[in-house]
Amino acid sequence: MSADECIFCRVVAGTVESSRVYEDEDVLAFMDIQPVADGHLLVIPKRHAPYLADLDEQLGMSMFRAGQRLAAALRNSGLPCEGVNLFLADGEVAFQEVFHAHLHVFPRTPGDGFRIDADWREQPRAELNDASERIRSGMAASPS
Amino acid sequence: MSADECIFCRVVAGTVESSRVYEDEDVLAFMDIQPVADGHLLVIPKRHAPYLADLDEQLGMSMFRAGQRLAAALRNSGLPCEGVNLFLADGEVAFQEVFHAHLHVFPRTPGDGFRIDADWREQPRAELNDASERIRSGMAASPS
Repeated sequence: MSADECIFCRVVAGTVESSRVYEDEDVLAFMDIQPVADGHLLVIPKRHAPYLADLDEQLGMSMFRAGQRLAAALRNSGLPCEGVNLFLADGEVAFQEVFHAHLHVFPRTPGDGFRIDADWREQPRAELNDASERIRSGMAASPS
Repeated sequence: MSADECIFCRVVAGTVESSRVYEDEDVLAFMDIQPVADGHLLVIPKRHAPYLADLDEQLGMSMFRAGQRLAAALRNSGLPCEGVNLFLADGEVAFQEVFHAHLHVFPRTPGDGFRIDADWREQPRAELNDASERIRSGMAASPS
């Protein structure tokens, strides 16, 4: 997909309507049109970047800084907010739906209907150590 | 809770066993003992900080930078990983269970059992604009 066809690039360009909340040199935050709760925000890089790996570290950090500022703002907004989740989906299998990297920031309240389920299991130390070694090797092999 | 009693502070101090993966001046990453999938990591600040609001922005950015590096490492680790989620829970209602701020980084594969559900709804523009105004006011009122 070219940047011209990307819905979030069009939000940045202003050729698609959005309710903007925050902007700095690198990132833009606006309201998610299909929120899990009133106040659900998306933080995006202004420059097209499909995946986490396409964000240089400085840009990723700018997104998180905006997320932190917005989390504080949500708590001060008067909107129902007793907690906040930050969520980023990198890849379709991880529930990414728009292929322009974005960080979800949304307020939480008791009974808000947001649920997580998973096959959690207590993992034996030997397996944890094996996984940690593999990830350290992966880190040594990765470009950053 | 004092830092002495905090389980993650004890991980940092090395008085509780952990499988460490990454460390820099500010943050530590280690394997979650109750993973949603093999390779599930937690990134924590070395200094005790219960909530997102207790992290200065530089520290929050260091956590996210580590998360980005670990996401890349997971994809290079040989562990099953076709996508990655980053998740942060700020507050008990947001599913925070250990009150030392932490960023979850975990690999995703088809059929891995991780599920999200919510009462998503398409929100009218007028409501989105109202929420965005409230959050902007909240931002103006917040300390950062």
